[in-house]
Amino acid sequence: MDRRSFIKRAGAAGAGAAATAATLAAPAIAQSAPKISWRCTSSFPKALDTIFGAAQTMAKYVKESTDGNFDIQVFAAGEIVPGLQAADAAAAGTVEMCHTASYYYWGKDPTYALATAVPFMFNDRQMNAWLYYGDGNALLNEFYATKGLYGLACGNTGAQMGGWYRKEINTLADLKGLKMRIGGFAGKVVEKLGVVPQQIAGGDIYPALEKGTIDAAEWVGPYDDEKLGFQKVAPYYYYPGWWEGGPTLHTLVNLAKWNELPKAYQAAVASACEAANCDMMASYDYKNPGALKRLVAGGAQLRPFSQEILSACFDSANATYAEISASNAAFKKIYDSQAAFRKDAYLWAQISEYTFDTFMMIQQRNGKL
Amino acid sequence: MDRRSFIKRAGAAGAGAAATAATLAAPAIAQSAPKISWRCTSSFPKALDTIFGAAQTMAKYVKESTDGNFDIQVFAAGEIVPGLQAADAAAAGTVEMCHTASYYYWGKDPTYALATAVPFMFNDRQMNAWLYYGDGNALLNEFYATKGLYGLACGNTGAQMGGWYRKEINTLADLKGLKMRIGGFAGKVVEKLGVVPQQIAGGDIYPALEKGTIDAAEWVGPYDDEKLGFQKVAPYYYYPGWWEGGPTLHTLVNLAKWNELPKAYQAAVASACEAANCDMMASYDYKNPGALKRLVAGGAQLRPFSQEILSACFDSANATYAEISASNAAFKKIYDSQAAFRKDAYLWAQISEYTFDTFMMIQQRNGKL
Repeated sequence: MDRRSFIKRAGAAGAGAAATAATLAAPAIAQSAPKISWRCTSSFPKALDTIFGAAQTMAKYVKESTDGNFDIQVFAAGEIVPGLQAADAAAAGTVEMCHTASYYYWGKDPTYALATAVPFMFNDRQMNAWLYYGDGNALLNEFYATKGLYGLACGNTGAQMGGWYRKEINTLADLKGLKMRIGGFAGKVVEKLGVVPQQIAGGDIYPALEKGTIDAAEWVGPYDDEKLGFQKVAPYYYYPGWWEGGPTLHTLVNLAKWNELPKAYQAAVASACEAANCDMMASYDYKNPGALKRLVAGGAQLRPFSQEILSACFDSANATYAEISASNAAFKKIYDSQAAFRKDAYLWAQISEYTFDTFMMIQQRNGKL
Repeated sequence: MDRRSFIKRAGAAGAGAAATAATLAAPAIAQSAPKISWRCTSSFPKALDTIFGAAQTMAKYVKESTDGNFDIQVFAAGEIVPGLQAADAAAAGTVEMCHTASYYYWGKDPTYALATAVPFMFNDRQMNAWLYYGDGNALLNEFYATKGLYGLACGNTGAQMGGWYRKEINTLADLKGLKMRIGGFAGKVVEKLGVVPQQIAGGDIYPALEKGTIDAAEWVGPYDDEKLGFQKVAPYYYYPGWWEGGPTLHTLVNLAKWNELPKAYQAAVASACEAANCDMMASYDYKNPGALKRLVAGGAQLRPFSQEILSACFDSANATYAEISASNAAFKKIYDSQAAFRKDAYLWAQISEYTFDTFMMIQQRNGKL
């Protein structure tokens, strides 16, 4: 054997040995820790740092806990696709996942809305109870699977505010003809009461309120609303945002991509999403109080919705649920599950939690905290 | 070169290539995914499946997201050390970590209690806001480091109930001489009002109430209390448990062991603990409503504490905080941080969240849910 032949064969043997080593080592690497890079398109701009931040928190936990091997890059709305096309992009495989509010897609199927929030349903904690321990996650994923998606709860804003109004709204008569920037399901509910819902992008709300093109607009809550300065042009700040008692954000993953993911990475994503779910609520709860104080100092006039208005909206919401349930079996199945738990959840919540909070709020009002 | 020489050299080359492959692959395995087995001693028995379960949820997320490489085994109270020695066992390195309520160790230093719950402080969400976005986790870990521990929030029960009483408690006079099974910090607060605090293990409470050795006992809330059957011997079930508005459970890790852990495993534990923190609250919120209904059907008489009693307890708690703060700088630093956030947190909570909940509770009472 000449040297050249030897090198060739030894090289082959070496390669073979390396291949064997690779064969031995690879399963552990390939199955458990392959280098994967995913794109997550957010429905939100970076300026909404609390909501956008939930996707970043999730991605950070996943990346760090996989030693950098599973790298999820989060893109703001518009960087890959517009915010309202996030779920479509994930379903189509344009991106592997998105972070979004499922109710944005209620126009395609109102069932999407039940994953986020529907009027007069849950607060943050009740939603989590239903998702993680009730039928929630299982029922929602039965639905999402029909759309080619797998959903994981990933953030909550808590009860939102009821929006900014140029004039006081005291009675049902004040709602007639009110041009209000209010989206989706809630728009459908208030439309029955004479409100004229408007679809306006976040950045266009302020000038529309200023010019009087619209009379009112809902956005999120103090921390996010403050950035847009609504108190200068529509000072009456109503509460509660009865259409969003505890809206849940979702990470929606392309179903085929989810199923291909190593089990360890699925677990890392599930853990990170549940952690981010907790984290985003904490972020809002920490940031909203200061923003509320600054808004009031800057001219915002806090107003509770009257019982007359809340009751009429509640009835209108129930009528809407009945209408949709009559023709949409998927919606009915999930709505019925939520409504059944809601009944018991509010029974328990009013005992210890509510009386504890009430006593503490009285102390706050009396300047004793 | 003869065949034998070739094989020898080729083998060496092959081994070299394999060694090279190992050299390339090993760091990724050795640094990021070593096989590690830890023991986590819980302060709780398996029968308290919701609290014990939070440690299991944490361990499951960690194990799965590390592909089984980081295996945390959870042991019930007594299997390795008694429940109240869990933190000591972690600090001493007898176990690598424990899952416990930090306030169990308040006798060593009342600062421990601030990590869990102190009277008239936070509800679940406010505690999380302070922990994750306020100074909470940083301040607590500054304290824990002096004890050789690293702490991660890992579960919450929500507002607990105020306990079971053989007779109705209406006025401050009814508290005088009341022999009550009530632990730690809260015992110190009610002692100022004439209550005689008793330390009794969970399993001994029922016979003590039955015989009248004690007059009252606090435990957790409906789901856990139901298992012990207190309604049969002390039917008056008071609320709120003002000493535990949102008690946080902690995973306490031996500090040296924590620092030795690969960064990826630290991240997996952090993610899993925050996920379990969310998960345990959801578990209680899902399980408590049904238990409450069964308890009431079984004879429990729900009673709110009178404002007279709550106000006196609030004043007594504040006096206790002032006393401890005067001599314990670590306590004062953390208490002051909590109290500062509390003031703003209850201002915001009473706006949208509270009015949303209130309206929904009215519907519940009116049978409209």
